[in-house]
Amino acid sequence: MEKEPLLMLPGPVPMPERVRMAMVRQAINHRGAEFGSVYTDCVRVLKETFGTKNELFVISGSGTASMEAAVANFGRGRDIACLVNGKFGERMYKIAQRYGTAHELSSEWGTPLNLVALEERLAEGADMVTLVHNETSAGIRNPAEKVGRLARKYDALFVMDGITSIGGDEVRADAWGADVVVVGSQKCLAAPAGLSAVSVSDRAWERLSSERPYYLDLAAYRKSAKAKIMETPYTPAVPLFLALREACLIIEEEGLGPRIARHRRNAESVRAAVKAWGLDLLPEIDGDHAYSNTVTAVKLPGNVNDSEFRGTVKKLGIEIAGGQDHLKGRIFRIGTMGATGAPEILATLAAVQHALRIHGHIPAGDGVSAACGVLG
Amino acid sequence: MEKEPLLMLPGPVPMPERVRMAMVRQAINHRGAEFGSVYTDCVRVLKETFGTKNELFVISGSGTASMEAAVANFGRGRDIACLVNGKFGERMYKIAQRYGTAHELSSEWGTPLNLVALEERLAEGADMVTLVHNETSAGIRNPAEKVGRLARKYDALFVMDGITSIGGDEVRADAWGADVVVVGSQKCLAAPAGLSAVSVSDRAWERLSSERPYYLDLAAYRKSAKAKIMETPYTPAVPLFLALREACLIIEEEGLGPRIARHRRNAESVRAAVKAWGLDLLPEIDGDHAYSNTVTAVKLPGNVNDSEFRGTVKKLGIEIAGGQDHLKGRIFRIGTMGATGAPEILATLAAVQHALRIHGHIPAGDGVSAACGVLG
Repeated sequence: MEKEPLLMLPGPVPMPERVRMAMVRQAINHRGAEFGSVYTDCVRVLKETFGTKNELFVISGSGTASMEAAVANFGRGRDIACLVNGKFGERMYKIAQRYGTAHELSSEWGTPLNLVALEERLAEGADMVTLVHNETSAGIRNPAEKVGRLARKYDALFVMDGITSIGGDEVRADAWGADVVVVGSQKCLAAPAGLSAVSVSDRAWERLSSERPYYLDLAAYRKSAKAKIMETPYTPAVPLFLALREACLIIEEEGLGPRIARHRRNAESVRAAVKAWGLDLLPEIDGDHAYSNTVTAVKLPGNVNDSEFRGTVKKLGIEIAGGQDHLKGRIFRIGTMGATGAPEILATLAAVQHALRIHGHIPAGDGVSAACGVLG
Repeated sequence: MEKEPLLMLPGPVPMPERVRMAMVRQAINHRGAEFGSVYTDCVRVLKETFGTKNELFVISGSGTASMEAAVANFGRGRDIACLVNGKFGERMYKIAQRYGTAHELSSEWGTPLNLVALEERLAEGADMVTLVHNETSAGIRNPAEKVGRLARKYDALFVMDGITSIGGDEVRADAWGADVVVVGSQKCLAAPAGLSAVSVSDRAWERLSSERPYYLDLAAYRKSAKAKIMETPYTPAVPLFLALREACLIIEEEGLGPRIARHRRNAESVRAAVKAWGLDLLPEIDGDHAYSNTVTAVKLPGNVNDSEFRGTVKKLGIEIAGGQDHLKGRIFRIGTMGATGAPEILATLAAVQHALRIHGHIPAGDGVSAACGVLG
């Protein structure tokens, strides 16, 4: 291989050179003023991407670590309603089971959430709701605002996984009443894998559990963040913070509005190609739910072999994702997160179109050209 | 500042260029063969540095995360005897309190552990023992082999924090009967901060708790490590793994024996300087306990102001550590971990000798020259 493949996955995603180069530096003291300023920059920009004025912390651990931090600090012993229509909703449910009395409110992957069941659970006493805003396993965007209204109506805490939407799609944590919100570094932020961030509302702090884990103890993060020089309670992954800061500065330079518009246009261009090919998107959406603006999940025609199909795409230097768990072999997914632009998308669609054709699906029309129409 | 200060701390430590450069790469898919091979290389070399044939996992989180993983997976509900003669022993005790019935067996920082009290606790039913092998807060090396023998005699699990000894001093986890052992990346391994590793004996697996955390669930790490391609259960901090692999290959190239001998010589050279200056080391050692071979803790003369003294050293481009908690202002510490060699040590000792003189302590003799005698 002449170079790394182009990753068109729902994370990790290609990083801008500035972000990668930031990691090469010699070790710095993470208890010093420079690290404090790096952390401060990250928090400032991340708060904007979350749409929050709440406290926000960066954790040296992947998105799953911050999901667990949310549940472990605020959900212990609670009655937790877990909305599930994909793999990451299931993961949230598994985490919730370790800390509280968890109830799975599940729909088929990629179909609308059961909000009627949610309201019933809330009326029956659920005092925490978990939601995956953008479910990458199924390419669906869930109605966070509506879930937030329901949670607030019944005075339940609202924990939102924004891991694959924040920085690429509109998230308004405070306006939606999302109390604890999580993002991962290697998705729409276009930073390296290994960090995550979590924001915490005053309402959540008031319900902080007295029994908390240690490494993920958010009260310890809060205390360290308020020190004279902002710091983390335990040793942070310094090179990843340096990279995340650079990724955050890039977001500020692009502007959050234009960045979200770019992500939407990118996903729209992929959907236009899918339509031109005569294929179907996986999600079944309604007025509340929408196609994801950061990853597109497509039903694979029954006669196309998944591994051969994606193998052909990979031979052209591009990695797209298959389905997970029971959707393996039945869908393929194209991530359009982070620094992704027209060149990456056009190359990917050209390769996919070619691979579909040689593996048995003659595209109804020219998807690459349809995408150009959206992107141009 | 023309460049980063030289960090002569008990971690983080300067990294070799090869290690830093490894992080600059474009994102790779962490579910692919290349990542599997990176992880496999890390595990092979780390097992050698641990002196273990047990399973070993790399966790995307700092040493504290792995310390918690050890206690959370194997210590829940147990009667835990925590040996404490410094800050990190105290941290282990704090973690143990969150999961079991923890008993602190404490000595003054830097003084020998109370092994008589340990045997009493074991006889009274303690079924887990925690030990910090090398206590950087006090510059003392604790008798791990002896603690292991006591733990085994009473059939208790032995959890050992080898965060600042492994890769720089002799550790023989299996021979010492250490069941769960932990290292951090940014210490003697000379890799960037943000990763840690934990090894687990069969004896520990047999006592795995049924109630475990999620992100730090070692059973999940075990399952993923046994997959066709070795992987981690959740997204790993990929750039840090790439750097750690390079750091591990450097350890293999140097050879573990020569590397440990170099660390010992380095620490010995600092101790020779301290003696020449007429200063005292902090630790009170006996036949079981020894001066640390990776960090040297020195009593600051009563008339020397700590922040002025270390400020002068810092103006010369070098950061040494002060004391922590109640030892703040009373000691200074020089780390000699990882890639550190004669140039860094001689520069540091020259700066310290100068700073001592101008802040009120006339050195009895030439410490720099004494160190040369050891290093040359």
